[in-house]
Amino acid sequence: MPANRRFHLAKRPEGVPDRDTFDLREVDRPEPGPGEALLRVLHLSVDPYMRDRMRAGESYSEPWGVGDPLRGGAVCEVVESNGAGFDPGEVVVGNVPWAEYATAAGADLTPVDTGDLPVSTALGVLGMPGRTAYFGTREVAEPRADDWMVVSGAAGAVGSVVAQLGELQGANVVGIAGSDRKVEWLTEELGVTAGIDYEEEDVAARLDAVADGVDVYYDNVGGPVTDAVWPRLNVDARVAICGQIALYNDEKRPVGPRKLPKLIETRARIEGLLVRDFAPRFREATEHLAELVARDDLGYRETVVEGLENAPDAFLGLFEGENVGKQVVRVAEPEP
Amino acid sequence: MPANRRFHLAKRPEGVPDRDTFDLREVDRPEPGPGEALLRVLHLSVDPYMRDRMRAGESYSEPWGVGDPLRGGAVCEVVESNGAGFDPGEVVVGNVPWAEYATAAGADLTPVDTGDLPVSTALGVLGMPGRTAYFGTREVAEPRADDWMVVSGAAGAVGSVVAQLGELQGANVVGIAGSDRKVEWLTEELGVTAGIDYEEEDVAARLDAVADGVDVYYDNVGGPVTDAVWPRLNVDARVAICGQIALYNDEKRPVGPRKLPKLIETRARIEGLLVRDFAPRFREATEHLAELVARDDLGYRETVVEGLENAPDAFLGLFEGENVGKQVVRVAEPEP
Repeated sequence: MPANRRFHLAKRPEGVPDRDTFDLREVDRPEPGPGEALLRVLHLSVDPYMRDRMRAGESYSEPWGVGDPLRGGAVCEVVESNGAGFDPGEVVVGNVPWAEYATAAGADLTPVDTGDLPVSTALGVLGMPGRTAYFGTREVAEPRADDWMVVSGAAGAVGSVVAQLGELQGANVVGIAGSDRKVEWLTEELGVTAGIDYEEEDVAARLDAVADGVDVYYDNVGGPVTDAVWPRLNVDARVAICGQIALYNDEKRPVGPRKLPKLIETRARIEGLLVRDFAPRFREATEHLAELVARDDLGYRETVVEGLENAPDAFLGLFEGENVGKQVVRVAEPEP
Repeated sequence: MPANRRFHLAKRPEGVPDRDTFDLREVDRPEPGPGEALLRVLHLSVDPYMRDRMRAGESYSEPWGVGDPLRGGAVCEVVESNGAGFDPGEVVVGNVPWAEYATAAGADLTPVDTGDLPVSTALGVLGMPGRTAYFGTREVAEPRADDWMVVSGAAGAVGSVVAQLGELQGANVVGIAGSDRKVEWLTEELGVTAGIDYEEEDVAARLDAVADGVDVYYDNVGGPVTDAVWPRLNVDARVAICGQIALYNDEKRPVGPRKLPKLIETRARIEGLLVRDFAPRFREATEHLAELVARDDLGYRETVVEGLENAPDAFLGLFEGENVGKQVVRVAEPEP
């Protein structure tokens, strides 16, 4: 059998995962069953939600079993089709194991059509994070002209798109991120109104200095950053809860300042979102985002880690804030 | 000058208020200015939100100054009109000091028209609490047929109306209250599906036993009761934050289990409400509620404390859960 390498969940992490969470196994290259394709993985996505799948028990995503392969979104090249409806050499996106080779049902694969952009953008600005930003902004956060809109995790794959969509709606966006390099990217290159480096600055004081309260809050991180934003919510504020990465490694049920009393004073509306609820409208989102990128109205970045064996570092780096924009793992080049 | 007695804020309470918070003064009976009426207070309303007005600083209601009269909703008889547009003997509702006699501008008074019901219901089921329940249920919580709907503070002035409006919408209502007597009233007399006595029962375990999760949560209390409800929210749950009485006496910023992560899993919508936002539609609410009472579809109770001098006890009793239904203070009988 030709060789293949694949990551499995070695054990459930307690608190912050480390390299021992991940088990890289030498395995056989799988055979595509009827209706399936054999895929060569080109780019693998690592995302914060995967931390939740490592946990036993209740979550919005099915937990992985110990010993199971880790899985995620990936851009792949079709090597062989067993009635999957794709030709060898076609580039597709699907949900597959963290591996060099994988099989998937043709029905679960989507052709990648990123036009002039690199195919890896199908995992970022034109993929799940971009769509999350699109629906979260449009359907939940609903920024309006002249609103003060705060985005946490603003230099991440979702947050950077949200921040720009907010500006395009005419809102004054304040992006909160974890380094001056990220803040500079947001304000200097992406045209975001203001940025706050939560590692170096007092978020509450800076918010008071740059914004007139908070009309819209798009939350990707939770925890202390959100605690600083909350008392600044304005009357009729809208809050989209998209991610809570600051809490994902907590083993105990996390505790913090109570947030409900503020809602009476402000009559704010808080709503959680999962992009999969908008699946019937994914094409609308991707087309809209592609058009914005083509018009130079939407900038994006990728942070690339080379080699499947380094996927755990790419994943762990998400919790250290090491990525600017979308974090991807380059597993292989397409066949020439 | 004819005699009058009036309560003033003696000092700002720290934590739970006590009798020393209240200063009952012998004062002159006020003279109505142009456009004003002299009023004899018949029934005075005490409400949880008043705790917040005793506090300096940010809230949804203007803080009272130390030494200022305490104020609240009251049903009054017009004694004398100085061009206020009311005749002596008319019964009106307005916002006046906790006193035997008060003046108010005619424009700030509303004629009481409670039909066959006691005039005091203009402070309860047909007054501010009833309207709060009406708009909070209809515009924020939005119970639907077969929903599992949980109401905290369910035997209070607002909660008891909410619970019944939920049942009228076809929801299965679980009322959480602080004694078996209250639970019995809800389930035996008001037709609420189930009740939980949070003083004697484990709210979480009881909820798991009686309900299939929580589709709608109407929160009047906050704190530990809400902490028990939260993990049981269903997908697409709606939560109305109407009151947080369990936290009103906290001096420090209260801390508790973080509630935002659950919103991603459930895509729940949380919204705070203040009844004054619905002022243009107050008549609609009152007419609807009066019709429900007339049809015997809406039950209510009042807990009456006799005598202005006992108004502090009536107020303090709210935080001890002593009232069933609306707490009022009977200050005087109407002139025969």
